[in-house]
Amino acid sequence: MSVITPRTPPGTMELLPRRQIAFQRMLDTIRRGYERFGFLPIETPAFEVADVLLSKSGGETEKQVYFVQSTGGIEQGHKPDLALRFDLTVPLARYVAEHERDLAFPFRRYQIQRVYRGERAQKGRYREFYQCDIDVIGKDTLPVAYDAEMPAVIYHVFTELAVGPFQINFNNRKILLGLFASLGIADPDVRALVLRQVDKLDKLPREKVVDLLMGEGIGLSTDTASRVLDMIGFAGPAAQTLAHLRGLGVQDPTFAEGLAELTEVVAALKAFGVPETHWRVNLAIARGLDYYTGTVYETFLTDHPGMGSVCSGGRYENLAGLYSKSRLPGVGISIGLTRLFYALEQAGIVQDGPSTVQALVTQFDPALMADYLAIGAELRAAGINTEIQLEPAKPKKQFAYADKAGIRFAVIMGPDEKAAGTVTVKDMVGGEQHSVPRSELAARLQALVG
Amino acid sequence: MSVITPRTPPGTMELLPRRQIAFQRMLDTIRRGYERFGFLPIETPAFEVADVLLSKSGGETEKQVYFVQSTGGIEQGHKPDLALRFDLTVPLARYVAEHERDLAFPFRRYQIQRVYRGERAQKGRYREFYQCDIDVIGKDTLPVAYDAEMPAVIYHVFTELAVGPFQINFNNRKILLGLFASLGIADPDVRALVLRQVDKLDKLPREKVVDLLMGEGIGLSTDTASRVLDMIGFAGPAAQTLAHLRGLGVQDPTFAEGLAELTEVVAALKAFGVPETHWRVNLAIARGLDYYTGTVYETFLTDHPGMGSVCSGGRYENLAGLYSKSRLPGVGISIGLTRLFYALEQAGIVQDGPSTVQALVTQFDPALMADYLAIGAELRAAGINTEIQLEPAKPKKQFAYADKAGIRFAVIMGPDEKAAGTVTVKDMVGGEQHSVPRSELAARLQALVG
Repeated sequence: MSVITPRTPPGTMELLPRRQIAFQRMLDTIRRGYERFGFLPIETPAFEVADVLLSKSGGETEKQVYFVQSTGGIEQGHKPDLALRFDLTVPLARYVAEHERDLAFPFRRYQIQRVYRGERAQKGRYREFYQCDIDVIGKDTLPVAYDAEMPAVIYHVFTELAVGPFQINFNNRKILLGLFASLGIADPDVRALVLRQVDKLDKLPREKVVDLLMGEGIGLSTDTASRVLDMIGFAGPAAQTLAHLRGLGVQDPTFAEGLAELTEVVAALKAFGVPETHWRVNLAIARGLDYYTGTVYETFLTDHPGMGSVCSGGRYENLAGLYSKSRLPGVGISIGLTRLFYALEQAGIVQDGPSTVQALVTQFDPALMADYLAIGAELRAAGINTEIQLEPAKPKKQFAYADKAGIRFAVIMGPDEKAAGTVTVKDMVGGEQHSVPRSELAARLQALVG
Repeated sequence: MSVITPRTPPGTMELLPRRQIAFQRMLDTIRRGYERFGFLPIETPAFEVADVLLSKSGGETEKQVYFVQSTGGIEQGHKPDLALRFDLTVPLARYVAEHERDLAFPFRRYQIQRVYRGERAQKGRYREFYQCDIDVIGKDTLPVAYDAEMPAVIYHVFTELAVGPFQINFNNRKILLGLFASLGIADPDVRALVLRQVDKLDKLPREKVVDLLMGEGIGLSTDTASRVLDMIGFAGPAAQTLAHLRGLGVQDPTFAEGLAELTEVVAALKAFGVPETHWRVNLAIARGLDYYTGTVYETFLTDHPGMGSVCSGGRYENLAGLYSKSRLPGVGISIGLTRLFYALEQAGIVQDGPSTVQALVTQFDPALMADYLAIGAELRAAGINTEIQLEPAKPKKQFAYADKAGIRFAVIMGPDEKAAGTVTVKDMVGGEQHSVPRSELAARLQALVG
């Protein structure tokens, strides 16, 4: 029979076990962090009813949507009625609207699932990737204090992830909108365009952004474009940034609201215990999405600015306007873990870690199999993840296996040891071997694996 | 703006947070059990390249396949080139064949992911559901001892799941095939049909199964049909069952091989520490799939036989013949958790559990917000999952929220307590309140949440 070449679908991340374990540890760390801050798990189906999923946008989003259809449906020429989710926000909106009466508000949920986009396949672009989201959804209102909780979660999670120094950047879109209004940039479409260009201040030189602001579709004067960037380009500690904003003398009410919110977030952050070394107010941050209406966040790894933001989000005025008449304001953040993991791999930060398997009971003498099984059962009962080598193989091959698999401890027992009531424990990393009484093996290994 | 009715796609399981937590606990228990026995995690993409996924079967499987296609692909009239996996076995075969050179054998993997089937939507039938699989894959050979390890894992996991008494049933298909050969049932297609009917002995009366064996497509004589069931219908302790089989005087070599394997598995099970109360040899178990070639398993909840098998699997001769020229024998089991969870819900066994949130810091006085934030940070640093109530609300409403959300402990501090350096802890289940020194709060709660 001819063999079909096995191949992973393009645009997906598939890992070997030891790499998968490293990935899984990051997922677990994020989940533990989210739970530590009192967020509740939900999961939604990978696909949604197409009409529900695509009720909003059309355009760019729709082009990237993967539709789902069974063989029968295709044969009958039906239009696909299911589509894979492209983010976790639309499913959240649908979930909250559908289950509104059964949820307690403010509703704090975390959701760690894969999402799907019909991207053109290229390096670092994924058609399937993990998003790790938290959101707090209020009913009618949601105090600004929740905006300060998000950086506290980011700080906790990225500290635990231990992927090097990082800085949380945040801003308030109302400040930007108010500034524009005060400069006579009134058209909402033009404002949105200006925000989108201002967002590029981190990546492009100032003159280039001025050009963009004076260019087609926006058409600011040189003077106004410069003022925009003077106002927004300010960088300094939070207290100075707030003073700079107060000193601008802008009378716009939206600006005042944004400044009050930003001031409150800055004050609360200290009470939340987030050290100022790990965050800054960055007036150039706008986030591309028009969806956000207040506080916005981006997070950068200090040593890897090229990775872009590794954790972003913001405040929005109404989560589920498409699906519910209730007003549901919220604030949330998202970690795109697949993309982050890929970037960390490229930067050489992610390594194969130790295996989840902590001990290998080797097979020295097939006649002692019943003892090996009993030892394995004892170790497992003591909470040690244990593999028993059930296949006869030369000791050297068994050690090579433990080594390749990243298993730290090998347990060895031959007839002499059995007679003496001892067992040998070999540390595959350090190489040293210890003889321990059989009766103490589980306790000794427990101590060793911590 | 008109509102679109939010609705979960039919044939999927979506849970409210407290129910999701109960589900998540079961997933975590299964994963921990699989890791305890030394299985390594892998994850594969939700979709596979359609040609690779569907290279084998056609027919029934293909009808249930969900194809995936982006908008662009549909517009251009392309045939879909991606399809959602319908189980975890085909992706495992593809994974092992593709990464063969990088894997250490025997390769022990667990995989806990969702699979997709284009089922007609009806109660208890799922289009998306979790499978929790383990498999051990050998290169060229895999000793029968691994067949005995599977019941050990099932025993451990179902004991930990604590869903009531259960019994692992197993058999060896070689015994059945050998018996049929000895009775002159030589045609492989007829054998497969006989096995399929014998599989119904648990559900149908003996006479009905005799009728089926004499019926169209099989056509055994009354005598042969009766002999088949005499041989297979035997029930008793393992030692007696093995004696019954030895006493049949069947000379067929496949039968002898199966009996030797079964004898070895039974002997090894004791050494693996699986009590005989929790397993039996059941000669009527055949498993529908032609895929299995040796030991086969089914697991039943003693109090809920109507649920059918909740954990099944078996030994197969070659995992990846479609994708690799290597011979890769294996043995594995699968828990269909979504279906099991649904059945447990229907039987009233699954309840909303306690929240993952262990403590709620209530907001008694907004002026003390900085204290509440500091208390929250202390509790989180002590490893306690803590929500801080950042929204001002009447104490009664805050307690009602904690109660509805299943949060066990509420932390309360007013101005008097602040002055006295104390905090009140309220147990939302027992209802009792304790005043504790602020400095001891974290330690006290740590002890309470265990």
